Amino acid sequence: MSAVFDLTAELIRRPSVTPDDAGCQALLAERLARVGFTIEHLRYGEVDNLWATHGEGGPLLVFLGHTDVVPTGPVSQWQSDPFEPVVRDGHLYGRGAADMKGSVAAMTVALEQFVTAHPDHRGRVGFLMTSDEEGPTNLDGVRRVAEHFRSTGEHIDWCVVGEPSSKATLGDLIRVGRRGSLSGTLTVHGVQGHVAYPEKAKNPIHAFAPALAELAAERWDEGNADFPPTSFQVSNLNAGTGASNVIPGTLTALINFRYSTASRAEDLRARAEAVLGKHGLDYRIDWNLSGEPFLSPANGVLRGAVVDVCRELCGIEPEQSTGGGTSDGRFIAPLGAEVVELGPVNATIHKVDECVSVSDLEKLPSFYQAICERLLG
Amino acid sequence: MSAVFDLTAELIRRPSVTPDDAGCQALLAERLARVGFTIEHLRYGEVDNLWATHGEGGPLLVFLGHTDVVPTGPVSQWQSDPFEPVVRDGHLYGRGAADMKGSVAAMTVALEQFVTAHPDHRGRVGFLMTSDEEGPTNLDGVRRVAEHFRSTGEHIDWCVVGEPSSKATLGDLIRVGRRGSLSGTLTVHGVQGHVAYPEKAKNPIHAFAPALAELAAERWDEGNADFPPTSFQVSNLNAGTGASNVIPGTLTALINFRYSTASRAEDLRARAEAVLGKHGLDYRIDWNLSGEPFLSPANGVLRGAVVDVCRELCGIEPEQSTGGGTSDGRFIAPLGAEVVELGPVNATIHKVDECVSVSDLEKLPSFYQAICERLLG
Repeated sequence: MSAVFDLTAELIRRPSVTPDDAGCQALLAERLARVGFTIEHLRYGEVDNLWATHGEGGPLLVFLGHTDVVPTGPVSQWQSDPFEPVVRDGHLYGRGAADMKGSVAAMTVALEQFVTAHPDHRGRVGFLMTSDEEGPTNLDGVRRVAEHFRSTGEHIDWCVVGEPSSKATLGDLIRVGRRGSLSGTLTVHGVQGHVAYPEKAKNPIHAFAPALAELAAERWDEGNADFPPTSFQVSNLNAGTGASNVIPGTLTALINFRYSTASRAEDLRARAEAVLGKHGLDYRIDWNLSGEPFLSPANGVLRGAVVDVCRELCGIEPEQSTGGGTSDGRFIAPLGAEVVELGPVNATIHKVDECVSVSDLEKLPSFYQAICERLLG
Repeated sequence: MSAVFDLTAELIRRPSVTPDDAGCQALLAERLARVGFTIEHLRYGEVDNLWATHGEGGPLLVFLGHTDVVPTGPVSQWQSDPFEPVVRDGHLYGRGAADMKGSVAAMTVALEQFVTAHPDHRGRVGFLMTSDEEGPTNLDGVRRVAEHFRSTGEHIDWCVVGEPSSKATLGDLIRVGRRGSLSGTLTVHGVQGHVAYPEKAKNPIHAFAPALAELAAERWDEGNADFPPTSFQVSNLNAGTGASNVIPGTLTALINFRYSTASRAEDLRARAEAVLGKHGLDYRIDWNLSGEPFLSPANGVLRGAVVDVCRELCGIEPEQSTGGGTSDGRFIAPLGAEVVELGPVNATIHKVDECVSVSDLEKLPSFYQAICERLLG
């Protein structure tokens, strides 16, 4: 088979469930070193990060991805071993096939071909991998690498993220930005007591109810040309001892804003706290800003190049979206980089029988290589 | 020591945590049989019930109690073994001392003395014990015995419940009725999804919020001369998978009405469901009516007798209350009985270091005996 197919299969065989890299980065580093890349291994805690560069000076174009995968879930529900690559009906099956070992292999092959064809290309091309993209906190992955870059003064101009962005066919959708994500852990304090003596207790469920109704009904902003309106969700709400005759003493809730560039995190925090305060609640809220929103401008150089490549290589006009969750691009964008995401179809990611179309996989290196040609060729 | 003290101590030594009677009823049955009572053991499931009667025809005065106790909680927090009766500072310590082995012993001693003094008393006197008053469902305790009485046509005129009713001193408060208790297990259905794609999900927390606020703010009735207003409480509220990025598919809540005779259970159910329906919820609610309210009328014969006895024996006017939780009286009242509750001070019930004043305990048989004298003497 082809180089990209073989490398994807090699990566799938390594069971690199977060944060275990399972030898993926060593394999990639060896290949890129062979074609002249400078290799740096940045290990933080249990997390492996690989930083490989080729060339000199600016501008700097970075390909960003992750070698870790989500757990398989019940292996018995898979049609075949999730860590044994198998082709069925034109698709390569295995955990990480689409998210995102296929993109990682395609980026590697594209870079090999680009630097071989253009040993003296303009500026620098970089390849940044982490083994902690799928974990709950991402503390020691690209977040830490970005801090390192900030301290060393590394300036990234453009960043292509290999997340599986496509909907139905390769290149039909690219991500040109992401919403921010602001979470809060809320505790509302009441006074525990017996249901038969409500006058001696203070039920935090009852106290919170009107504030909750107001928060759920609030329109936080109208969005803008690039983003849908900010959304607010309560993901978890818990109160009660389990006993049916006890008024609980506390209520806890996890809340989350996915917010557009039309709002700022500090304003959302203040508005939520104003609602809680207005209803006289005795509460505590711990906020966690897991990522600010970012946007590649409509006239961005990278955005233009990626759109052109999609038009040329697959003959369709890609949808330019800011939807979905967030990505490690949120750590790179604040360094001043323009960030665009392009990868294979995401229909099976995080599911059993994850797969990638073999023909899409075979085409993917040419997309990444064409981006290199346009920006650094 | 006295007969009532010794018998209370004997009962405390039997670790009769619900539903285990641990031999208490056998001890009581043996004593009452010795003075001429007819004994019937009614065992349902794991629960022991004792029904002992003396005399012929009507009217029938029943003394109602329970031999089971709540668990001790952490034994290390007790000053002495909860199942080893000990006197300290004029109090008898042990699990069940106040709730309600002291009352059970006092009733037994009172009945022994009454039938010995009045072998040919008017009507009948009965003694009903269960080992399932403190459990969560009470299915096989007095609820089942009451069904049995209904099927055999047993008619009870008056019922004295030995629950610890007193606040600060013996006889300062009697219960002349209890509120009803209506519970509901509510499930609100939504559509699970990812927090980043709220348009594909339906958050049941958000859907329920305005209905919850309305239910918590509702004034269900104004109460009446005998009862405070009906109270509504949500005791448990749970939604969420634990993950902060998942919109939950369902929400569950446990709700409870403690309701006065100013409302009917079916109307409260209908009004709660009307609120849920008005907010367009996809919900299911399972109702459980654990007890209807009951009230001994102001001119009731038993109520008058108990008030007189308190006045005479402790020289104070007892408060005539319908407050607090509910009791097994709720199963006897619907048989047409007038129900009044009188027992020792309840300050330590269900706590560590539960105790009863020895001097109150010594007086208690005379209260119960005086009630027998007035009604059947």
